[in-house]
Amino acid sequence: MRICRYSTDSGASWGIVEDDAVWALDGDPYDAFRRGARVGTLADVRLLAPCEPSKVVCAGRNYRSLLKEQGRDLPSEPFLFLKTANAVIGPDEAVLYPKGVRDVAHEGELALVIGRRAQQVGVDAAARHILGYTCANDITVRDWQHPSEQWLRAKSSDTHCPVGPWLETELDGVEDLRVRTVVNGEVRQDGRTDDLVFSIPELVSYVSAHMTLVPGDVLLTGTPAGIRKVRPGDVMEVEVEGIGTLVNPVRAWPEQA
Amino acid sequence: MRICRYSTDSGASWGIVEDDAVWALDGDPYDAFRRGARVGTLADVRLLAPCEPSKVVCAGRNYRSLLKEQGRDLPSEPFLFLKTANAVIGPDEAVLYPKGVRDVAHEGELALVIGRRAQQVGVDAAARHILGYTCANDITVRDWQHPSEQWLRAKSSDTHCPVGPWLETELDGVEDLRVRTVVNGEVRQDGRTDDLVFSIPELVSYVSAHMTLVPGDVLLTGTPAGIRKVRPGDVMEVEVEGIGTLVNPVRAWPEQA
Repeated sequence: MRICRYSTDSGASWGIVEDDAVWALDGDPYDAFRRGARVGTLADVRLLAPCEPSKVVCAGRNYRSLLKEQGRDLPSEPFLFLKTANAVIGPDEAVLYPKGVRDVAHEGELALVIGRRAQQVGVDAAARHILGYTCANDITVRDWQHPSEQWLRAKSSDTHCPVGPWLETELDGVEDLRVRTVVNGEVRQDGRTDDLVFSIPELVSYVSAHMTLVPGDVLLTGTPAGIRKVRPGDVMEVEVEGIGTLVNPVRAWPEQA
Repeated sequence: MRICRYSTDSGASWGIVEDDAVWALDGDPYDAFRRGARVGTLADVRLLAPCEPSKVVCAGRNYRSLLKEQGRDLPSEPFLFLKTANAVIGPDEAVLYPKGVRDVAHEGELALVIGRRAQQVGVDAAARHILGYTCANDITVRDWQHPSEQWLRAKSSDTHCPVGPWLETELDGVEDLRVRTVVNGEVRQDGRTDDLVFSIPELVSYVSAHMTLVPGDVLLTGTPAGIRKVRPGDVMEVEVEGIGTLVNPVRAWPEQA
């Protein structure tokens, strides 16, 4: 099933996507719900990020192809960092290019949203805490990444965490899915999740050993080789096999009001 | 005025503290409110962390005394990192000591809570975006700090961000207040905010230049020299002049249920 969030006159609602149709989700996406009234087609509604995270935990250096490209050794433990909620945007929303920087990069990823509270969860039990899978783009301001030591500025600018287009709750074969990033029609990243250093259950278990994950929290699972710069005017697409495509344009940071 | 949050049968409420009395806060602490009915005395109510942050941004290396102790140069820009919401606890709640580590440290700090959305705010306007000031303790698992490069594990374990006991909305002389950390009655850290490298308005302005701060977000302003280890059984007190004292015991991590 595909669960989405969409914009309404009064804010946001959860919905269910079937082919091109969007239906209301009656109930609680993290608990009991059923399909409600028909809302319209995907062309009629504006999709939002399918999550309201208290935290966005990201795994870095988690594809062998990326480690090889960067000349790094395999890590012995997951390498984790955070993005903040102000960075989260949905499909088709613009990623804003900050002023005064020259090196902003795409990082297309498979992401997951937590459905059930996870605290010290074992690897075998991890899947039961996942509501669904989606695409994400871990936008990174590389001008700010290395001088800062800690990556807060580099990773958490407003709009720098596109997520969507929806959650796929029944994703088959998550151990071996294609993950691609396409910019202006050109393939920039093309990996498969069988190249992950730490599997998704291993990541959920590891994070939950250190901090409680709550419903709505997002975990980005890492990006394959091929991270490159983007510029205002570019259009980025992150495609994950079995889920769909997350499209976001890049625009210059607006002048201050 | 002192604004608090306290535990009720149905969850949590905002309140107002006057001397030893706690009163209900009728309205929105971020907007219009007035004093409501009397709830009881401070001895009757359980205070909670006076914030519900979407993010907790921390300034590190921001006291000259700490930089001197650590042999570091003055930073040219604020050094920032994050703590996560799962880490936030209130007064008198226990800080849990993780298993398998040996070096967990206190870092007593002056903190502030954002009252109005702040995006690219100038230094002169920063104070208007602050709802109030409080005490915080940036608990750090130093065993996990240096091997990990990024500080997610070291800074964001459950219970590792005590905040409270309340927000002081009219704090005089924030440029020169005493900030002390006392463990089991022994003074461990004893600094003054006139030793800050970046002032509070400078920090708010700098953070807001990179990411939007929203009401409820918390900013920790740094810790003075004297960071030392704590152990289960210790009782930590963070005292900020003009605000009050935040007391938290340290307990061993509970056995898994």
